[in-house]
Amino acid sequence: MHNRTVFFVSDGTGITAETFGNSILAQFPGQPRHVRRPFIDGVEKAAKVVEEINTVAGKDGLRPIVFVTLVNDAVRDTLTAPDCTGLVLDMFRTFIEPLEGEFGVKSNHRVGRFADVAKSREYTERIDAINFSLAHDDGQSARNLAMADVILVGVSRSGKTPTSLYLAMQHHIKAANYPLIPEDFEREAIPSALAPYQAKCFGLTIDPDRLSQVRHERRPNSKYASLANCRWEVVEAEQMMQRARIPWLSTTHKSIEEIATTILRDIQPQRLVY
Amino acid sequence: MHNRTVFFVSDGTGITAETFGNSILAQFPGQPRHVRRPFIDGVEKAAKVVEEINTVAGKDGLRPIVFVTLVNDAVRDTLTAPDCTGLVLDMFRTFIEPLEGEFGVKSNHRVGRFADVAKSREYTERIDAINFSLAHDDGQSARNLAMADVILVGVSRSGKTPTSLYLAMQHHIKAANYPLIPEDFEREAIPSALAPYQAKCFGLTIDPDRLSQVRHERRPNSKYASLANCRWEVVEAEQMMQRARIPWLSTTHKSIEEIATTILRDIQPQRLVY
Repeated sequence: MHNRTVFFVSDGTGITAETFGNSILAQFPGQPRHVRRPFIDGVEKAAKVVEEINTVAGKDGLRPIVFVTLVNDAVRDTLTAPDCTGLVLDMFRTFIEPLEGEFGVKSNHRVGRFADVAKSREYTERIDAINFSLAHDDGQSARNLAMADVILVGVSRSGKTPTSLYLAMQHHIKAANYPLIPEDFEREAIPSALAPYQAKCFGLTIDPDRLSQVRHERRPNSKYASLANCRWEVVEAEQMMQRARIPWLSTTHKSIEEIATTILRDIQPQRLVY
Repeated sequence: MHNRTVFFVSDGTGITAETFGNSILAQFPGQPRHVRRPFIDGVEKAAKVVEEINTVAGKDGLRPIVFVTLVNDAVRDTLTAPDCTGLVLDMFRTFIEPLEGEFGVKSNHRVGRFADVAKSREYTERIDAINFSLAHDDGQSARNLAMADVILVGVSRSGKTPTSLYLAMQHHIKAANYPLIPEDFEREAIPSALAPYQAKCFGLTIDPDRLSQVRHERRPNSKYASLANCRWEVVEAEQMMQRARIPWLSTTHKSIEEIATTILRDIQPQRLVY
């Protein structure tokens, strides 16, 4: 696959083409070269991409794979014409046509996910969620925790911050996060700021060996990073979450996407249609 | 479409199914009800989803649309069997089979994008990028700007923070951001911390009316939010970027995805194969 090139061609950002294309390509061994061509919204631009595809095909000695998400028929036809040597996988046409039949309406061939961002309530909610998650990162503020959809808890470096930001960015969820620290373990009680909100808390835990490794990168040879301390913190945190009946999962072998999806499935925040 | 239900069924997080499904559905008017069913990795779980689909079909009086990304054949066959009343759009089978022919190998039917997160270099880079972007949000730190892939500049509330976080999360790009403030306009010079890095700066600007509206939500009736002040800041910032030859775009009508994609296309950070 090293000699193979994959194009992602879109009239928008191409993010859909790339996300989908990558999950298809992950089913095959090897890493092809990626070429992104976003904002291809006219026949002339499309013709240039075809030239590029043909040049690459000659160089590689293999025809490129071309994932396209193009709503304009003329633009799309340029890519799928016989003089384009790429193997074109047309994600829109394949699925939109059966849906037009099912819905009994023509598709509106709209480019992009948001019609006009500045006027979209959904979009404002997204930005609000990101700002909320940033302001409530790492227990920075206990104000407005009542407004949080989810509060992630766990020891330092268990994955709370990236997960909160992802929940906000992708799912428009107001995700606060709050650390569990040695002082809490000594008091044997969850932080008092969290007490009223146990029902929307979700815990992240992590394998102590992995935690120690991650902390060593941050503060080499500290007590904070030592395996003994990591083991103690993790055991204490898990016991504390169990007593407080906070559900939790281990982030050790999970991507942010997998962690976020599990949280949403288990906690079912009210704002989400699930 | 209000009476129509859409299912996203996956053996992984279902994010691919949902992202792709949403961009398909955006081609049609109306908002169907969404139901996510992630982690469907066995025939029994799949059979339960089929029951659910059939129940919903009865209630709605319309057959649900079902986007599936399932690599296991037996699980997939359960969803596509004749007793499932949904219109199943099978994203994997449609595209994987032609690719098996093209590559001359069978697909490995792997679930998820990352094989083992804890061991993946790509994944570590992603977390590093998120941490970098957080630490370099809003000019918090000028240390390590040399390590940034991109530095976003612009007036307060022009969209720098969400864009930096998105670049890190989605593209593993170390994106710092640095505000342009009235003091810079009075001195008529870009912040000195940025001077050595002009080549990797990218500017965000915004329509002054929109900016004023956004700032009023934050600090109502302040000078900061006044239309006169917003107009002045925006004009000054654009002139400053022009003098410093920093490319920029207006975020007023753009989603985070569109802004990020334009930046990557124009600035072509070295770490990205573009």
